[in-house]
Amino acid sequence: MTPAGFPSAQAAETAFYAAFENADYVAMAAVWSPDDDIECIHPLGERLMGPKAVGNSWRRMFSGGKRMKFRLAHTKCFQTEQLAIHILYENITIAGKQQPPLIATNIYRFNGHGWHMILHHASPATDIGKTDDMENTVTTGPVVH
Amino acid sequence: MTPAGFPSAQAAETAFYAAFENADYVAMAAVWSPDDDIECIHPLGERLMGPKAVGNSWRRMFSGGKRMKFRLAHTKCFQTEQLAIHILYENITIAGKQQPPLIATNIYRFNGHGWHMILHHASPATDIGKTDDMENTVTTGPVVH
Repeated sequence: MTPAGFPSAQAAETAFYAAFENADYVAMAAVWSPDDDIECIHPLGERLMGPKAVGNSWRRMFSGGKRMKFRLAHTKCFQTEQLAIHILYENITIAGKQQPPLIATNIYRFNGHGWHMILHHASPATDIGKTDDMENTVTTGPVVH
Repeated sequence: MTPAGFPSAQAAETAFYAAFENADYVAMAAVWSPDDDIECIHPLGERLMGPKAVGNSWRRMFSGGKRMKFRLAHTKCFQTEQLAIHILYENITIAGKQQPPLIATNIYRFNGHGWHMILHHASPATDIGKTDDMENTVTTGPVVH
């Protein structure tokens, strides 16, 4: 863990997905707040609460040896001085094969020095009609209907 | 919609689940921020963005005539002056039949006058070994391991 934290929520998010792609447990642990109140919900998984349960889940996942490539899309941000909420699509490729899209709500907290992740809530999304749309709008930010 | 909003995020959350149980579209619409940046993710559904898409989803759901009873458990809150994040289990009963548990991340925003919901992200949870545990700890608040 890194008590100092990241200079911005966006920097923490970039580090989160880099650690995820690299299956780097130490880098992943540094993204998360060391506080007891963190939570992590992997797709269709249970609520993992606290650094021990959250850390173990990443260690298990990374020891599985599957390397994932992420393409993130439609990131929506809500930001205040102390909290930042990012909602986005995760489009994951494993061994060149595109997986069904996931939706993630990622939350970051400022501890007075820097930013850490305090929540990752990921879940499967309906994929009907989504892939083409996301292909074209990956960098356009939030879509408002 | 109610521009004035609710006196607290908790009051907005209470109104949200009351509207859900009562299948009351007008009450549900009043819970949500009227702003364009709201999002709603129903379990395994797509990301609904903006008041029109979000409102239509509730209208469709409530017109189905299914009445749900909610038992909420393990609510964890992160609160600042402008944002409140609630993470909780939703245990739903339909026509007396217990459904598999859901996990929800609900986010509320203060608009200077009151609080509204800006995000509801619900997804299926692993139900193995969860029901007994939740039965006994429904009022104990967040669990930290």
